[in-house]
Amino acid sequence: MSNLIINFNSNFSKKIKNPKNFLGGKGANLSQMGRMGLPVPPGFTISTKVCDIFYKNNKQLNKQLIKGINKQLSQIERETNKKFGDLKNPLLVSVRSGARVSMPGMMDTILNLGLNDKTVMALAKKTSNKRFAKDSYRRFIQMYSSVVLGVDSFNFEELIENYKLTKGVLLDTELDEQDWDALIRDFKNVVKEKTKKEFPQDVYKQLDGAISAVFLSWQSHRAKVYRKLNHIPDDWGTAVNVQSMVFGNMGDDCATGVVFTRDPSSGKNEIYGEYLINAQGEDVVAGTRTPQHITKKARINSGGKELSMEETMPKVFKQLKKILSTLEKHYKDMQDVEFTVENKKLWMLQTRSGKRTAKSAVKIAVDMVKEKLISRKEAILRIDPNSLDTLLHPTLDEKSEIEVIAKGLPASPGAVSGKVVFSSEEAERLNGMMQNTILVRVETSPEDIHGMHAAKGILTSRGGMTSHAAVVARGMGRPCISGSSEISIDYENKLFKTDRIKVTEGEIITIDGSTGRIILGEVQTVKPEISGDFSKLMSWADSFRKLKVRTNSETPVDTKAARDFGAEGIGLCRTEHMFFDEDRIMSVREMILSKTTTDRNKALAKLLPHQKKDFIEIFKIMNGLPVTVRLLDPPLHEFLPKSEKEIKDVSNSLGLAVTEIESRIGELHEHNPMLGHRGCRLAISFPEIYEMQCRAIFEAIIECKNKKIKSIIPEIMIPLVSTEAEIQIMKNLVDKVANQVKAENKTKIDYLVGTMIELPRAAIKAQDIAKHADFFSFGTNDLTQTTFGISRDDSGKFLNDYIENKIFDIDPFVSIDEGVGDLIEIATFKGRKQNKKLKLGICGEHGGDPKSINFCSTTGLNYVSCSPYRVPVARLAAAQAQLKK
Amino acid sequence: MSNLIINFNSNFSKKIKNPKNFLGGKGANLSQMGRMGLPVPPGFTISTKVCDIFYKNNKQLNKQLIKGINKQLSQIERETNKKFGDLKNPLLVSVRSGARVSMPGMMDTILNLGLNDKTVMALAKKTSNKRFAKDSYRRFIQMYSSVVLGVDSFNFEELIENYKLTKGVLLDTELDEQDWDALIRDFKNVVKEKTKKEFPQDVYKQLDGAISAVFLSWQSHRAKVYRKLNHIPDDWGTAVNVQSMVFGNMGDDCATGVVFTRDPSSGKNEIYGEYLINAQGEDVVAGTRTPQHITKKARINSGGKELSMEETMPKVFKQLKKILSTLEKHYKDMQDVEFTVENKKLWMLQTRSGKRTAKSAVKIAVDMVKEKLISRKEAILRIDPNSLDTLLHPTLDEKSEIEVIAKGLPASPGAVSGKVVFSSEEAERLNGMMQNTILVRVETSPEDIHGMHAAKGILTSRGGMTSHAAVVARGMGRPCISGSSEISIDYENKLFKTDRIKVTEGEIITIDGSTGRIILGEVQTVKPEISGDFSKLMSWADSFRKLKVRTNSETPVDTKAARDFGAEGIGLCRTEHMFFDEDRIMSVREMILSKTTTDRNKALAKLLPHQKKDFIEIFKIMNGLPVTVRLLDPPLHEFLPKSEKEIKDVSNSLGLAVTEIESRIGELHEHNPMLGHRGCRLAISFPEIYEMQCRAIFEAIIECKNKKIKSIIPEIMIPLVSTEAEIQIMKNLVDKVANQVKAENKTKIDYLVGTMIELPRAAIKAQDIAKHADFFSFGTNDLTQTTFGISRDDSGKFLNDYIENKIFDIDPFVSIDEGVGDLIEIATFKGRKQNKKLKLGICGEHGGDPKSINFCSTTGLNYVSCSPYRVPVARLAAAQAQLKK
Repeated sequence: MSNLIINFNSNFSKKIKNPKNFLGGKGANLSQMGRMGLPVPPGFTISTKVCDIFYKNNKQLNKQLIKGINKQLSQIERETNKKFGDLKNPLLVSVRSGARVSMPGMMDTILNLGLNDKTVMALAKKTSNKRFAKDSYRRFIQMYSSVVLGVDSFNFEELIENYKLTKGVLLDTELDEQDWDALIRDFKNVVKEKTKKEFPQDVYKQLDGAISAVFLSWQSHRAKVYRKLNHIPDDWGTAVNVQSMVFGNMGDDCATGVVFTRDPSSGKNEIYGEYLINAQGEDVVAGTRTPQHITKKARINSGGKELSMEETMPKVFKQLKKILSTLEKHYKDMQDVEFTVENKKLWMLQTRSGKRTAKSAVKIAVDMVKEKLISRKEAILRIDPNSLDTLLHPTLDEKSEIEVIAKGLPASPGAVSGKVVFSSEEAERLNGMMQNTILVRVETSPEDIHGMHAAKGILTSRGGMTSHAAVVARGMGRPCISGSSEISIDYENKLFKTDRIKVTEGEIITIDGSTGRIILGEVQTVKPEISGDFSKLMSWADSFRKLKVRTNSETPVDTKAARDFGAEGIGLCRTEHMFFDEDRIMSVREMILSKTTTDRNKALAKLLPHQKKDFIEIFKIMNGLPVTVRLLDPPLHEFLPKSEKEIKDVSNSLGLAVTEIESRIGELHEHNPMLGHRGCRLAISFPEIYEMQCRAIFEAIIECKNKKIKSIIPEIMIPLVSTEAEIQIMKNLVDKVANQVKAENKTKIDYLVGTMIELPRAAIKAQDIAKHADFFSFGTNDLTQTTFGISRDDSGKFLNDYIENKIFDIDPFVSIDEGVGDLIEIATFKGRKQNKKLKLGICGEHGGDPKSINFCSTTGLNYVSCSPYRVPVARLAAAQAQLKK
Repeated sequence: MSNLIINFNSNFSKKIKNPKNFLGGKGANLSQMGRMGLPVPPGFTISTKVCDIFYKNNKQLNKQLIKGINKQLSQIERETNKKFGDLKNPLLVSVRSGARVSMPGMMDTILNLGLNDKTVMALAKKTSNKRFAKDSYRRFIQMYSSVVLGVDSFNFEELIENYKLTKGVLLDTELDEQDWDALIRDFKNVVKEKTKKEFPQDVYKQLDGAISAVFLSWQSHRAKVYRKLNHIPDDWGTAVNVQSMVFGNMGDDCATGVVFTRDPSSGKNEIYGEYLINAQGEDVVAGTRTPQHITKKARINSGGKELSMEETMPKVFKQLKKILSTLEKHYKDMQDVEFTVENKKLWMLQTRSGKRTAKSAVKIAVDMVKEKLISRKEAILRIDPNSLDTLLHPTLDEKSEIEVIAKGLPASPGAVSGKVVFSSEEAERLNGMMQNTILVRVETSPEDIHGMHAAKGILTSRGGMTSHAAVVARGMGRPCISGSSEISIDYENKLFKTDRIKVTEGEIITIDGSTGRIILGEVQTVKPEISGDFSKLMSWADSFRKLKVRTNSETPVDTKAARDFGAEGIGLCRTEHMFFDEDRIMSVREMILSKTTTDRNKALAKLLPHQKKDFIEIFKIMNGLPVTVRLLDPPLHEFLPKSEKEIKDVSNSLGLAVTEIESRIGELHEHNPMLGHRGCRLAISFPEIYEMQCRAIFEAIIECKNKKIKSIIPEIMIPLVSTEAEIQIMKNLVDKVANQVKAENKTKIDYLVGTMIELPRAAIKAQDIAKHADFFSFGTNDLTQTTFGISRDDSGKFLNDYIENKIFDIDPFVSIDEGVGDLIEIATFKGRKQNKKLKLGICGEHGGDPKSINFCSTTGLNYVSCSPYRVPVARLAAAQAQLKK
């Protein structure tokens, strides 16, 4: 048991394999500093292991533990030369929680534990400051009672407010020693009334209560919710740190502060921080006094007048600076440090890796390589690939003149323009016509998920940074402004108003999710660029990774962006997106409404030149890199008109009776379109559609050749294959068209034919399918839907319940699920066994998710393909995956 | 090569391992009879292997083959003492195809090959019948030209018709020798005109042409279609039988006939057949003359006057009878035999296992066991389990007075009553309200599949026995009358008319799919029974099989029927069906429309007594046998009102605003309901629903106990599980309710908790799920849908294309697909590894399909569960599976 309670200076902690797991993050760092000989106030850590023992012992500390704690407490007494509960020189301690990772929702800190009606007098005497001592005592009672005894804090606040009212003062600072004495009495009465017990005067009981409270807070509702959201296992437990108090508020030779070893915002290698003379830690955070700069340079740069620590306490500053350097060298990372100066003596209270912006993270990592502090590998492993996302969103072109009509919360970064719509249905409808929309709602609900997918941006008038709209939009990578109370939405009349302006459905607005600005009209956006440190980091990543990174793209704009971001090919070019253009959709509809193959061929012939042109453009941009073209996938009814007006238009344009169009729409209706007549099933019924598409690809290749454009080898991908016969028939179809085009043009054409693996049967029977495929591309969106039997469009209704009940550790549409992963592994194994040359990739949205990319690397795929703006994320994640192997 | 052309009497054929594969069915039997010393006209068989050689040799017989054929022909010449093409005693032969299995669509027979302008004279002389010889020759020209030379038969028919018109006669029999001579000239001219060649006079060329034609007919369109429909591999090929002709039409001491060794209709052990004196085989079939009975007894029983063969040719009859007995003893099966008597000499032309009705098949098998001809095992293996289906459909109670209003084709057996509906939507709507319907359509199309599922019977005014309606209805086991031209359907006014009567939508009719009768009003039907031979066969089957057979049933009527058919428990009791009853649906809707858990609980409390009553009734009927109860499965929107009127009713009844109900309907709408908020996902969101259902089950158990009803152990089944957490949470829920009910009643309750395995993820992760499950039941309907990513409701649009393109050998919703089977095997292996006691069953519709049952047996499942009327089919199939192991 004694090995579970460890003094900060103990050498035993050296032997611990995973100090953070055993001592918690805070404890491990205090212990580390202690062993390094840095000035840490004496104290000890109760291991995370004890948390489990505590819960198993009916949520109580057992005798052995109490004995161990007391033994360690004696050790602190010896180190500080103070005694716990002593009436002359009392030892006061802080009690803090400390889990493996920093975790809001748990009990944070109880300060000044050890004060009671008697020791408070000793403190007053020692500090020669009765008011301070009494104030500390009442704060302790307040904190302890609320955290440990469960007496709501407002009871105490109320007493203070009433007292001030009676006395006719406004601020706490206007209360003196006597006032606090009176309030302490009142406080203790409240405790007695609420708990039926006196406020504990026994300092050992106080300690026992505080330690227990830390353990209990591990299972508090907020902590549980936080763990669930952040996928932290319940069984990790928390450690408890008991540490002797030091005071930064005992006079002008005292201070307290927070300092970063580098600038956490820019990443510059300069000490950055704030301090306050004669203050306690909470004063720095509370904002009642304005903290001062640490360094002179920072003070001068900011034009500040209050002297910096470097100027007021040069000796201590020098010592601090040296310690910071030591710490950074030891941890090889930017540190976030808390310190207190008590009567000119510097005490280190905490050190931890500092939080930083993505931009500074990149700079710090690259700088540290230059400084030879870390290796390139370490630099790569240090950046969270997902964090790069914030560096990769389009921003408003600040050169444009803009008219900001309202502001809201910057809930999900990126700037985007689109037509205002007020319903998910309308967003979907316009998306079907390839029009960009901004979905404007009072708030969103799971029923809006499909609309949020369809819209390019989301704006709500209600809800905070963690509202449904904000969370979902961030997950989807859609720019979002939430809770813009400056706008009021009128669904009935399809408009929203500010106090100056009215915006109706269909008008174009621009939202800047990075700043919360809502702007009238369309604003040019600036594409983010990869340069400087970012570019260097990426090049290092590329030098390590084995997994290729392609992109999912079919428009020239996206394709160019993806190449700029380093895409090494297109992994998924969705040809149906090309069907929606205004000048084509009518031919597509004509094709679908054809009654004979001849008529259908006529309509297809009209589409051929368009598709061909698209391909030429994309092949040109890709300049020799591989392009995977997926043939038509969605069910035909997706292309048909939906509203009465649209049907009339089609009727006029194609000279078909409205009833006939309606009857065809009825015929094509599907109960479960996701599982319907789509993918290669369409081509089994209407081979001429794929034949046209293949012809467009091959003719595009020939035209590129003729125009001396660097040739590419197209990889023709058949969607929704589940049987050997399907891929066999489709391969024959592609070969047939290739041979026709070859013969017509008397030339050679190279191409690959492969298939999506997006149905469980295709994975299970991969050995058969691989006989006829040059490549497999895992379509993990559909594979996840069919493996789970869950429609993504409909999952909004129960996904929350599933996360609430911990059924899904993580949304399987975000990171590849274990079961889906099993199928991918089976398909990889069976496919490669049949066909050693089989090329394997992934093109579902998981292709841009670092966790999934790691899985792809482990499984041995050849490439991942993701949306253009995720390409750098994927490049970094792929490098990390390789380095972790 | 010589071993590929085998004389019927050759001893070589003894050495052939699979004579049917090598010689075809007909050839193997002729060869067998030859070796047994039975009087078979000399001849030989060209092996099925030659078919392949023929196609590889550019669809021609190579020199070696021709040499071999000629050698065998010489052998026949020696045996018959005739010579091929001889002008005095010419050998005439028949050429017949003969594949492994009898196969319509292929060339059948060419008779009298060897006739030409000269040999016909010899035949005339030999038979002293010029007219017969000329008639034979013109028939040969006609047959040969159409089959071998590709000259359409109607050319010749036309000539005969014109000739008769000119001559002023009506019947062929009125034409004489000279007439045929004239027509033979005309025939030969037609051949010359159409083929630019003379009709072949070289008898060897005739033979070469006929043999080639047989091989070519293997790839004829009709043959290919037949093979596809019957899953016969393309590479089997056909054999060719060349046999010397014998003549049953050379005088009154000649005859020809067809005879079965037992009665193929009743199965009685009595010779049954027909013959004609002085006739050729085709005359028996053609129907121009009425054939006479073979036995005296049959003649007397039928009150016939024309003497039987037993009476006219007693000697030959005796010889035939003996041969029949020999054959049956040899083949140990009822034989269907063709014979000819030429000048008192009996010749056996063919023997094969006789086709029989299901009823006679059962009787014959049981009788043959009694006769010690075959073993019980053989008897069981001899019956096609699917054929029992025809013995298991309800029939009209002939005691009822019925009003037949029209007739149609008996397209799918069984009798059923229901409300007339004219659209699939209406059928579905009424089915949703648990009302029986008859879907009446001019014809059906794939779009009607869901309506055909929903309706209890199908009636069409157009289309034959193989129309869409007929084929699909038979597949589904729905009674169907097709092509009833006596009714005319008026969709607009929602009625159909006969010339006497008008039937409007909603009126009740009864259809008898076994006879084609359409009856006004409801008619009582008689449940089929298992008794006599059938019962005996079933008891033998039970003694061999290991696989248990349960039933899918939730109504008392079905449950009773299933028990009578031998069900050993319920494998799937779908509780949602109990929700649709008129007195419950309103409470169900109230429950769904509830806004709070309290309101929902109130509505559920109203449902509890109903569910409890249902369970008591079913438990009672099952009398100690296991009952698997599946908790609520379908998405809630299925229970909500659909039409405006229904919505209004609900609004009135529940006191909710119409708009509110509509908005809830909108909220619950799903894009892909198959993959939506259903199964255990409902209970994750609304645990109180399953809690009510569990309480109903447990309280029913206790009430049964109190009433001293033989206790059953309920097996509570959780639908749509895909993760370990789901089954874990659900098991806790069931246990919680069980403990509550136990405590309330101070009694013990035994029960099992298990899950459907109906999603690929559940199969893949079976090791995790099995930790919390006492049993798995494979829900192969949904498992097939998700594994393939095919919605059964929508597959109608492309399933035909898939069968056409041979992508599906067999509809995966009928027989378990290989890929789905792999998942079942994986789940079985992983599940059993985790939990040795795991009970495994199947409750999809595949549970009643013999091929799938065989799979289940091989995979080692414990039981299959199928619809009540399939239980005997499953019992037999399970026994066969065991015996085949």
